[in-house]
Amino acid sequence: MCNFALHTSRKSQCFGNGKEGPPSKAPLLLPFLLTVLLVGSQGDGGAMDNGATERIAEESHRQDSAYLLIFIMLLTLTILTIWLFKHRRFRFLHETGLAMIYGLLVGVILRFGIHAPQSMSDVILSCAVNGSPATLLVNVSGRFYEYTLKGEVGQGKGHQVQDDEMLRKVTFDPEVFFNILLPPIIFHAGYSLKRRHFFRNIGSILAYAFIGTVISCFVIGLIMYGFVSFMKVVGQLGGDFYFTDCLFFGAIVSATDPVTVLAIFNELKVDVDLYALLFGESVLNDAVAIVLSSSIVAYQPAGDNSHSFEAMAMLKSFGVFLGVFSGSFALGVVTGVVTFTKLRDFPLLETALFFLMSWSTFLLAEACGFTGVVAVLFCGITQAHYTYNNLSPDSQDRTKQLFELLNFLAENFIFSYMGLTLFSFQSHVFNPLFIVGAFVAVFLGRAANIYPLSFLLNLGRKNKIGYNFQHVMMFAGLRGAMTFALSIRDTATYARQMMFSTTLLIVFFTVWICGGGTTPMLSFMSIPVGVDSDQDNARRSTKHESAWPFRIWYNFDHNYLKPLLTHSGPPLTATLPACCGPLARCLTSPQAYENEGQLHDDDSDFILNDASVSSMYADVTVSTDASGSRTVNPKHSSTARAGGGVGSFDEGLDHELSVAEHEVAIRGTRLVLPMDDPVEAPTTVTLPPPPSPPRSEPHRHRL
Amino acid sequence: MCNFALHTSRKSQCFGNGKEGPPSKAPLLLPFLLTVLLVGSQGDGGAMDNGATERIAEESHRQDSAYLLIFIMLLTLTILTIWLFKHRRFRFLHETGLAMIYGLLVGVILRFGIHAPQSMSDVILSCAVNGSPATLLVNVSGRFYEYTLKGEVGQGKGHQVQDDEMLRKVTFDPEVFFNILLPPIIFHAGYSLKRRHFFRNIGSILAYAFIGTVISCFVIGLIMYGFVSFMKVVGQLGGDFYFTDCLFFGAIVSATDPVTVLAIFNELKVDVDLYALLFGESVLNDAVAIVLSSSIVAYQPAGDNSHSFEAMAMLKSFGVFLGVFSGSFALGVVTGVVTFTKLRDFPLLETALFFLMSWSTFLLAEACGFTGVVAVLFCGITQAHYTYNNLSPDSQDRTKQLFELLNFLAENFIFSYMGLTLFSFQSHVFNPLFIVGAFVAVFLGRAANIYPLSFLLNLGRKNKIGYNFQHVMMFAGLRGAMTFALSIRDTATYARQMMFSTTLLIVFFTVWICGGGTTPMLSFMSIPVGVDSDQDNARRSTKHESAWPFRIWYNFDHNYLKPLLTHSGPPLTATLPACCGPLARCLTSPQAYENEGQLHDDDSDFILNDASVSSMYADVTVSTDASGSRTVNPKHSSTARAGGGVGSFDEGLDHELSVAEHEVAIRGTRLVLPMDDPVEAPTTVTLPPPPSPPRSEPHRHRL
Repeated sequence: MCNFALHTSRKSQCFGNGKEGPPSKAPLLLPFLLTVLLVGSQGDGGAMDNGATERIAEESHRQDSAYLLIFIMLLTLTILTIWLFKHRRFRFLHETGLAMIYGLLVGVILRFGIHAPQSMSDVILSCAVNGSPATLLVNVSGRFYEYTLKGEVGQGKGHQVQDDEMLRKVTFDPEVFFNILLPPIIFHAGYSLKRRHFFRNIGSILAYAFIGTVISCFVIGLIMYGFVSFMKVVGQLGGDFYFTDCLFFGAIVSATDPVTVLAIFNELKVDVDLYALLFGESVLNDAVAIVLSSSIVAYQPAGDNSHSFEAMAMLKSFGVFLGVFSGSFALGVVTGVVTFTKLRDFPLLETALFFLMSWSTFLLAEACGFTGVVAVLFCGITQAHYTYNNLSPDSQDRTKQLFELLNFLAENFIFSYMGLTLFSFQSHVFNPLFIVGAFVAVFLGRAANIYPLSFLLNLGRKNKIGYNFQHVMMFAGLRGAMTFALSIRDTATYARQMMFSTTLLIVFFTVWICGGGTTPMLSFMSIPVGVDSDQDNARRSTKHESAWPFRIWYNFDHNYLKPLLTHSGPPLTATLPACCGPLARCLTSPQAYENEGQLHDDDSDFILNDASVSSMYADVTVSTDASGSRTVNPKHSSTARAGGGVGSFDEGLDHELSVAEHEVAIRGTRLVLPMDDPVEAPTTVTLPPPPSPPRSEPHRHRL
Repeated sequence: MCNFALHTSRKSQCFGNGKEGPPSKAPLLLPFLLTVLLVGSQGDGGAMDNGATERIAEESHRQDSAYLLIFIMLLTLTILTIWLFKHRRFRFLHETGLAMIYGLLVGVILRFGIHAPQSMSDVILSCAVNGSPATLLVNVSGRFYEYTLKGEVGQGKGHQVQDDEMLRKVTFDPEVFFNILLPPIIFHAGYSLKRRHFFRNIGSILAYAFIGTVISCFVIGLIMYGFVSFMKVVGQLGGDFYFTDCLFFGAIVSATDPVTVLAIFNELKVDVDLYALLFGESVLNDAVAIVLSSSIVAYQPAGDNSHSFEAMAMLKSFGVFLGVFSGSFALGVVTGVVTFTKLRDFPLLETALFFLMSWSTFLLAEACGFTGVVAVLFCGITQAHYTYNNLSPDSQDRTKQLFELLNFLAENFIFSYMGLTLFSFQSHVFNPLFIVGAFVAVFLGRAANIYPLSFLLNLGRKNKIGYNFQHVMMFAGLRGAMTFALSIRDTATYARQMMFSTTLLIVFFTVWICGGGTTPMLSFMSIPVGVDSDQDNARRSTKHESAWPFRIWYNFDHNYLKPLLTHSGPPLTATLPACCGPLARCLTSPQAYENEGQLHDDDSDFILNDASVSSMYADVTVSTDASGSRTVNPKHSSTARAGGGVGSFDEGLDHELSVAEHEVAIRGTRLVLPMDDPVEAPTTVTLPPPPSPPRSEPHRHRL
């Protein structure tokens, strides 16, 4: 193929636009929503004749398929190796670490191994437009072709673009991560949250996630600013690096990843509280970090000196943070509650609806200017709490399995892409000083998050967070998908490029070293392992160790929200005061009346499940005998058993139910207010025979 | 925002390219693989300043999210209505018909209801490049921005592009249908084929699908050529319309859709042979039509007169057809067989691997220049036949449910998009004469497919295809997703635009009228309804009614392929001659040796299942007593029960097993060669007690 370039140096006229501003700096912010396009040229050049163009286009299509095939093969290889590892019970390297290694290998091969013949012939138009419009219409001898902006090509690279065509072909649009790969991961995290343990430690988790992340962000930002200032003095800095950049860096590396460590925790059955603390923190701090980073980007003081401190802009940023976070939160919760499906007879429709509603939450949040990922997280938590109870057993399995699969694929893709990108990314800036500084800052930032907060929290907690727990939390602060996605989103400036390269190294280090070292760390810190969470829970009751705000919320939720939004919980007519009777009946859905007889049975099961709370209310009259005539519904139980192979996710969601079962036994003794005597509970557990509620079987957790 | 346009009329210089060919005619063939991009501008104009651009980009991103939300809402609405319809047992309108109606409504609203303020400011560069390169580098005051080709904008529309911005925003890249939405639909069709009935009628199905589709294509093509010639005489034709275009039209409207009618058939339990004939034909003729249409496009006689008949080009086209079809077929079958998963302990990994392998089949075929959709179809059929048996019960459910969901979403999306596109598509050409001609041609083409072929087939079939069956097959030739995807793929020329508009109307008509009229048609034609396929099968044995090529294949498959590729079937050591003993042992996988004891049990079950065949071989010694000590494995059975809610798909896949069960009863009588006496089989069915093989329970089909 011939190589030709056009240079039209003549200035294009501009009609109707008097201003001449600086060119757009933010091509990467353009909304390539849902693009899984391989960035880079589609590879054909100027058309010689019709047939030739078609052949070139076809050839290029084949190439693209081949490149995508590389990724699929990478994932396949990862899966096979994971299987091997699981089969042989290797624990020193998690699947995400593996995926990164494979990605690295492929990156090396692509970079140094293959030298594909360059058939590309880019046309370089030097029309010197003012700014870079998103859409370009090019008049080609009378025909108009539409072009869309893909992004800026590196400075001065205009002429050597062909050299790295292949590497650019395996480079995805950064927005893909945000709009396609992150949402299922985050949703899955929310949907699979062990809610009972999560809510038990909600105060501490919120403290770590909100206060801790902000602390970490500012500590890292300040340390990095110190390093950067030093680098400027030494002359090691090749471009601008402002304080806002440092803060931005602090925000993105403050997002810890829930994947790797927790997979190991799950396998080893580590103490449930430690698990809940770490998981809750890492799930929520993703949300905090993403909103924090966008607030920092939004920090733009008025006037020319756009990187100085200004109180108003700071306040505005803070306002943005609060607004976006609470907006996304509210949206996620509302849509999570709205998906109040009643299509129980048609699991396929139900599952499809559930999936679409979760996705529309994301889109709705984005359309409203909130953060879709955050909305999806809270949507997942809410749906697991309310909607999940309304689904048919079949759909419960289906949705769990679907999101588990999506999460698995997205996660492994992101991590293998991370490995690949170390070699395929074109504008790496590895600055040794900055890297050392970043590692120090990340370490100190994590320490400044965990230790002081733990000390403060321990002042208020009955169930103290021990030093060994704190050390593990400190150690387990891996950086993963969210950090990567945030850092690759914008790599236009020198500062951002340096951040991206450094972030990659941090992710590699933490996933490999900290992830691989988790098992030794746990035994070194003598963390209880192999804890059967059933027994663990029989020992202590949730409510004893919870703070009063949580107790109030729990009661409100159980007595009013759950009955209103799901089929579980006591009927509203029972929990609301007598005067609200008509209202209570009104809020029960028509369909609930339709199959009232059957539902009544279900309801009483759930009342039993949560009996330790409902027993506090004198006006609740639960007439069902706890050890009574309940028989195991074969359909339910078979589904539960079939889902038993699902593993950790399953355990997470059903844990609450099995715990509730123990409380049924407690309920059997008619303890009216067992709350004040934590010692008394264990004695009642021995009461035979514990009934089997339809959806939770005791042996299930040993599957 | 200001609106500005650049007109640089000066000819750009072209270095290194002497030729000046006509501009590319095939921008739509460009490889937008996996793009779910909303075609159309990303909506921001020339940059005024940094902040402004970012704000515009953000605004545009919001808009895109909102537009995508429209589609999600459309699907949600469709699902809710489907639920209502299923709930009330409406059968006159299928879900796909519904999706189209909703799409139409949204299209009307978008077209006539909303007049969004036009904030777009496209830049029109008239640099008059030779051809339309896929990638454009634009030099904007020293910075290089990369632009990619989106496609050609309608003739002379350069200046009024802004008018239809919104409509273009809801227009998807046509390649999306081919590369994202069709594959899951086609794969699902292959994966859910009722294999037993399919193979029983394989000869007739292949005749209808191959010969019939080619006949239909040419009949329609010839009739349309007559109409078009007439239109040219009358002066109704506004552009070129060659004979190859007519043939192309014939090919794309010859693809019948398996969805709508068969959903009704399934629900009504229509005669299994009719079901198999229709389903098999419509699944396979999709593959034939797609390859046929690409062969017609490849028909390019040498010389200038590119639309005359030429024997060599014709032969070449035929060669392309054979090559692409057989290549895709081989690839699909090979990769379908290769996915020989042994990760039974980890259903998640297994499911992920299964999914990725199916997808890589598609990509591999595309990368090799074959047709991905065809490869995926045969991959699905093969996987259902072999790989499915190797999956763990949990993964069997998961894969079925996953592809069922993907199929459901993709299908409803395509049909609702069809409705939308009637109003949102910019270049409709509705020509009344052409439309009338097309309807006549489609009708006659279908008739020329069904009636003569049925007559010929009936000469050879023992189980004749009755006239009522033929009329139903004639009537049930709906056009759907494939026809749409093929016609929207290229709408650059006048002929293609007219085809697209007409095709849309044909799809609407057939889905609404023929789809809705299926139930009355069935009762009018007195087709047996409510046939219990179990009983139906007890009456007759597959092999009696099959032609000899099929019997040979069946035996070969059962004795050699199944044992080689799955855990089922008799061991190779038993079926191969004694001299091949070492080879047979060699071909058994190492893992099969590992858990040999357990597998042996499984194997003998399967030998029993297919005993009617293995009993023909004197050297097979099945020592297990048919009514013996086998107990139902609780894990298997519970999963099977849990999957029972899946509905039609489940029935399809497991049908074979339950049929085999009857043959177990036959086997119990030690009939050595039951093949020659079709009357004797039913008498043996009454023998009590039929054993329960682990994976198939008699009551399952009544769930």
